[in-house]
Amino acid sequence: MTDANKGCKITVHWLEQSRAQRIIWLFEELNLKYDIKLYKRGKDLLAPKELQEIHPLGKSPVINIETPSGASKVVAESGVIVDYICKHFGPQLIPKEYPAGKENEVGAETEAFSRYNYFLQYAEGSLMPPLLIYLVFSQLKGPQVPFLVRPITRTIASQVEKQFLNQEIEKQFRFIEAQLGSSGGDFICGSELTGADIMLIFPLQGAIEAKVLDKAKYPNISAYIDRLEAREAWKKAVRVVEEKTGEKYSVAP
Amino acid sequence: MTDANKGCKITVHWLEQSRAQRIIWLFEELNLKYDIKLYKRGKDLLAPKELQEIHPLGKSPVINIETPSGASKVVAESGVIVDYICKHFGPQLIPKEYPAGKENEVGAETEAFSRYNYFLQYAEGSLMPPLLIYLVFSQLKGPQVPFLVRPITRTIASQVEKQFLNQEIEKQFRFIEAQLGSSGGDFICGSELTGADIMLIFPLQGAIEAKVLDKAKYPNISAYIDRLEAREAWKKAVRVVEEKTGEKYSVAP
Repeated sequence: MTDANKGCKITVHWLEQSRAQRIIWLFEELNLKYDIKLYKRGKDLLAPKELQEIHPLGKSPVINIETPSGASKVVAESGVIVDYICKHFGPQLIPKEYPAGKENEVGAETEAFSRYNYFLQYAEGSLMPPLLIYLVFSQLKGPQVPFLVRPITRTIASQVEKQFLNQEIEKQFRFIEAQLGSSGGDFICGSELTGADIMLIFPLQGAIEAKVLDKAKYPNISAYIDRLEAREAWKKAVRVVEEKTGEKYSVAP
Repeated sequence: MTDANKGCKITVHWLEQSRAQRIIWLFEELNLKYDIKLYKRGKDLLAPKELQEIHPLGKSPVINIETPSGASKVVAESGVIVDYICKHFGPQLIPKEYPAGKENEVGAETEAFSRYNYFLQYAEGSLMPPLLIYLVFSQLKGPQVPFLVRPITRTIASQVEKQFLNQEIEKQFRFIEAQLGSSGGDFICGSELTGADIMLIFPLQGAIEAKVLDKAKYPNISAYIDRLEAREAWKKAVRVVEEKTGEKYSVAP
């Protein structure tokens, strides 16, 4: 039996309720062996300082790979980690880039590869930012704002949402809904699971949990997330983390 | 003389005061020929609907490449565009991935390539989101908020900045400052300009213009931006756009 790990020792630095869960899912899809190093958020909901010893930004996920030749490689930034792991340990999760005979020809990239390449960066580069702003503004409506000023902060938050944020977010959901409809298969790049699906699950689950995304309005997205969450590897990833933390898995902090 | 364009017709869909400027800079660095299609922001500062005809998200930049074989390729998402253009028209802007004899070996990637790969996605995936939230919150302090409630919105904005945002943003600047100090050259990946520099210029210029980034506090970043802006290709890119729009170039809307 071949060793999926290629002799490498992989450690994932896992912060609770963070983007790290999708990396565990990726490892499970690829039958990789890995250690989880657990970090808890502080009372301010921020990542603890110890994570900064692994990577100066102190963010999660960060992974570390010790190779048989003695190299030790730290990889950060979700999209970079997913692409790196797929490249070295799961090339089947990256669509074929060119049709035969058209290698390296400008514009000849397959539709599936172009989607992979796009959605890998889109998830954090375009989809997450407006969702993040939405989450920050929704705090202005909540009980942590003093009672007397809450009507004002609520009005402001609602105005920002109405004028800019909701349009932007709904446009993104409509786009993903349409892309799922035209992919020609169950996944965002087509009939096969790819690293792009691994990237998309986090913002979409987060949006559903935060009730920004109404599943009834987006049947393709809804069915897609159900399908991803029904995969054995996803369920195993949740189980692994629940056992390790002793807590129920949830996306949002 | 070889044709830098490889026979391709390149069009960049350029929205004023957007991430699109760095793509023009990239084209100038590579001596590519390109057409600029100009779009103006609406009164709400958002991109106009016509951009949605090119790409459903209606964002800028988006590029279109018509190849000699008749293919027409739309590429969106800044990091994807930069990488795509470098790959096909400027491989010298991508560091060599592996040392000779270690091709495709896990963990053997060169330091320069690992940086390229990381910073390409970091610029929009990690650096832009807190800057964007900062900009949204700074609106709460400004004259567009009605006079009577402004003291309250100011207090809220200042609290968010103090508790979370400033820490996060300064951590990012310290990180970039240190990375520039350890790159071994004038650029983020070392002694050569790469696509990663093209990606980093926009959030850093934006942060300087918005006075979030204090140039005196970060001498490496400050010298780096001065150095990039002194390049002939950058200056040409600004000139081209100023001529086209009849307005002075500025990062922020």
